[in-house]
Order: sequence, then C-alpha cells, then structure tokens
Amino acid sequence: MNEAQIIEWIRRHAAPPTRDLVLGIGDDCAIYRPRRKEDQVFTTDFLIEDVHFTRDIYAPEAAGHKALARSLSDLAAMGADPRFCLLSLAMPPMLDPAWLERFLRGFLKLAKKHGIALAGGDLSRAPKVVCDVMACGAVPEGKALRRDGARPGDVIYVSGRLGKPWQTHQKPAPRIDFGRLLRGRATAAMDLSDGISMDLHRLCKASGVAASLDHIPLVKGASLEQALHGGEDYELVFTMPPRLKPPKGGIRVGVIERGDPGLINFEEAALAPLGHDHFRD
Amino acid sequence: MNEAQIIEWIRRHAAPPTRDLVLGIGDDCAIYRPRRKEDQVFTTDFLIEDVHFTRDIYAPEAAGHKALARSLSDLAAMGADPRFCLLSLAMPPMLDPAWLERFLRGFLKLAKKHGIALAGGDLSRAPKVVCDVMACGAVPEGKALRRDGARPGDVIYVSGRLGKPWQTHQKPAPRIDFGRLLRGRATAAMDLSDGISMDLHRLCKASGVAASLDHIPLVKGASLEQALHGGEDYELVFTMPPRLKPPKGGIRVGVIERGDPGLINFEEAALAPLGHDHFRD
Repeated sequence: MNEAQIIEWIRRHAAPPTRDLVLGIGDDCAIYRPRRKEDQVFTTDFLIEDVHFTRDIYAPEAAGHKALARSLSDLAAMGADPRFCLLSLAMPPMLDPAWLERFLRGFLKLAKKHGIALAGGDLSRAPKVVCDVMACGAVPEGKALRRDGARPGDVIYVSGRLGKPWQTHQKPAPRIDFGRLLRGRATAAMDLSDGISMDLHRLCKASGVAASLDHIPLVKGASLEQALHGGEDYELVFTMPPRLKPPKGGIRVGVIERGDPGLINFEEAALAPLGHDHFRD
Repeated sequence: MNEAQIIEWIRRHAAPPTRDLVLGIGDDCAIYRPRRKEDQVFTTDFLIEDVHFTRDIYAPEAAGHKALARSLSDLAAMGADPRFCLLSLAMPPMLDPAWLERFLRGFLKLAKKHGIALAGGDLSRAPKVVCDVMACGAVPEGKALRRDGARPGDVIYVSGRLGKPWQTHQKPAPRIDFGRLLRGRATAAMDLSDGISMDLHRLCKASGVAASLDHIPLVKGASLEQALHGGEDYELVFTMPPRLKPPKGGIRVGVIERGDPGLINFEEAALAPLGHDHFRD
C-alpha cells in the first residue's frame, strides 16, 4: 500500500467523526470545536518496536491496543472523557501489510470502545515500527486531576491490585471510568505506568509531601518486587481526604505525610524509586 | 542526563506558559482552557533521523528547528494562530548531550518566535533520533482554511518562489503570518510539503476539481523539476475567487477548472503527481 492507500484504509475503518470534530482525517490539520466550560487535557505517548513491544512475539492487535491504551491511561489519570486522538506511525516500507492491518484493528477497536475519534496523524518510514499517539480528553472547567494536590493526612489508594505479569497478548484496560469517578474527590492522581515506587515518588514530589505505604495489594502470583517496581499495571494511584470514601474497587495502600518531598516510607525504610527510566545514569 | 533531568532542562529553557495553558510540562497531561468562539486545529509531524535529516551533516539546531517548522507549516496552511505544542522525542541512550541541547535550543528558539508554548510530550529511547511534534492552533469559528473549497474559476497562487535547494543549515520559515491573511479570503489552502505537483493534486482531488498551471515561479538557481516535485519549500498554495487580490507576495500560478478531480494540466499535458510518498508502490 502507498501512503494514500493506507490513509484511505484508516479513514474507512475508523469510527465516524464525533460532533465536536469539524474535520477529521485528510487535511493539513484536523479541526475541532471545543465545548463550552470545559478544560482540555493533552498527552502523547510513544510505542516503539523493541522498546515497548517486539514484533516477533507480540500479537499485532495487542501492540495496536497498547499504543492507544498508554495515552488513554493518561486521560484516565486526569479524570477526563476521551475526545479525539492523532496517530503518528513510522514503519519499514517492507512491513507485512497484514501486520499493519491487524495493528490498526487493535488500535481502532479500543478507540471505538472509548468513543475516541481518530482525527488525523502522520505516516513515515523508519527501520522499526514507531508509533506516537496524541490523545485529547475533556473535563468540566477546573476539575482535572493533577499530581500536585496531595496533602498530609490524605489517604493513598490504588484502583486495583498490582504486579500483573507481562503477557504478549495482554490488552490492558485504561481506567477511564474509574478516573471519572475521582473528579472533585481525589486531591491528586496519576497512572501507574512506571511502577508505584517511581510514580508515587513523582506524585509526592509534585505535591511537596512524603508518604507511608502500609499495604501493597498483589495480583495472584505477583511478587512484591513486581508490584512495587513493575510498569504495566495501568491502574491509578490517588489521594483523598480521610472523610471521603474511594470509588468501588479502590484499595488503601498508605497515607500522605509531612516530610522530604518525594520520600516514600515502606516497612520502616525509605523506598527507592526504582521504576522505569529510559535514561537512567 | 536521566529522564527527569532532561525534562527539567526543557522546563527551565522553555518559554513560560501562556494564559490559556492551565498546566504545562510535568503531569500526566497538559491542561488547556480553550478560548470562546474559536475552532482549534491539530497536526502532528515526524522528524526522523536518516529519513528527514542526518545527524552527521545536519546542524543540530537546524534539525530542532525543522522538527517544529513542519508542524507550524500545517498550522499556517489552516490560517491558524499557534497556541501550544507537544514534543515526543526518542533517542539513543548514548546520544551526545551537547547534540540534544543544541537540537532543543533550535526547537525552542522557533517556538519562542511564534509564541507557541511547549506544553508537554514524551521521552523514550530508540536506535535513531525520532521526533514527533503535535501542534495546536486556533482560528475564529468556521474560519479554518481547508483543502476542499476550491471552485472552477478560482485563481491559484503560491506564497513565494519554489524549488529552494536543500541545505543542511537551512531554517525554513513557516508562513504563519501569510496564512493568517488568507482567512475569510482563500477558498482552499495547503502547505507545499511534498512538492506542488503532489500537493496541488491533493487539493484539487479534495475539492473535486482540476487545475491548469501556467507559470511556476522559481527561486534563483532552481530547476523546473525541483520546483514541481521538490518538497522542502514550506510555501503555501491557495485559491481565491478572481475578484479578490492575494496578500502581498502571492504569485499567480494557474487557475481551477472543471475536470477530473485532481488532474493538473501543465504545458498542454497532464502533470504526474511525483512529489514525495514514503510508501510508493
């Protein structure tokens, strides 16, 4: 397929544009008409062959699913409703068209499930598959969940058990519905994309607080190490004042405290932020 | 530098957030509050090592400039004011930090010039430098320039001479100011990123019209071939009813006609759309 044919295939298989999307795929830019009294949230996430997935053992649909799930998980962390996305995709010219089609089907199936319109993107060639997904979501004005609002005394929760083993056919579900329930209730939230030791450290640093972890809920078969430092959970970590109840499924893991910003205490010692860093020294 | 250090460097060197940007670099998403009665336009463009530039002969600042210029040129083609951008950057872990710093300086200098805020992005590793830039612009409601409005009888113009020779230190200027002047006047517009033979073909196809080219304005030293099929001009091609005058600097190149959608006549023959296609069969 040439560039025009790939774009035409995507246009035919993507869900029809939503009411906010004035113009979708096919022009220099997509045109979007924002709704009144809403804030927008924007994120972009890479999915790179041999970094985030491998083509030999990953199902193409799972890779396409994951490409969008990473960005949707960031929208969930802000408590946002998904609105539209852009897909940038670079690949080897000789890539098997069947692989590409299955990759795109995985992507578009998840997009349809969450009602997020594919509004445009870019195509290019590259020695390996490189995908970058920009997603836009919306929240009522001033209601986006941020990292920097946690206060001493707040209780720390996660949206589900941690340490899911990595599976090549895994299609993690971004916690969009859960995130929506946190609006106006959570004082801070983020998604667990790099492991709770790293991500809670970041949340605490942004909020200028410390934390004590007292309980790590494990999925069956997971080790504590995987749950603390693993990075494929797509669960949310969030904080709420003790007088509020978390949404159903929320599990208490600790409490926010005064102390060195970013310091996490666990089992009477400081927990090192060992989660994922692409450029660790 | 590790991931946190690179993000901190970018945050320190980026221009301060603009008034629309509620929250910039550092959370799961950027938060943006759209202005009333405006449409937004969104584009995303790759800049990939050994595809769009080479690290051995391209000045790093020129590569960084080009990364943003490609997206800004798309905003110009819609007649939009630049608002904010997201930078996704993947690179080899052993990349010379001095190269990265100079690349980012080239990017941020152009961002500052056009008042576009860097609101966030993503960092990853990859065997080669891969950059993907999402840019958001804004226009008064309903005023975005599209490809699909050209009508028979409209005059075709370009915003400047074509066929600029490729230079490794070249810092092409996206035609933001020119695009703004076309709002409410041009019936169709797009930027010349893949050569006028290909791009005018696309404009005509989207508008369901044909075109006759009668004059190709060349930069000094350019061949007709370079001007027709070259892809580094960053000029705009646009159409206007004959009763309107183009903005200063606009050069007439032909006229829109009834005929096979996308057919371009030049020197009494059909002009093949030979511009750039990453996946030509």
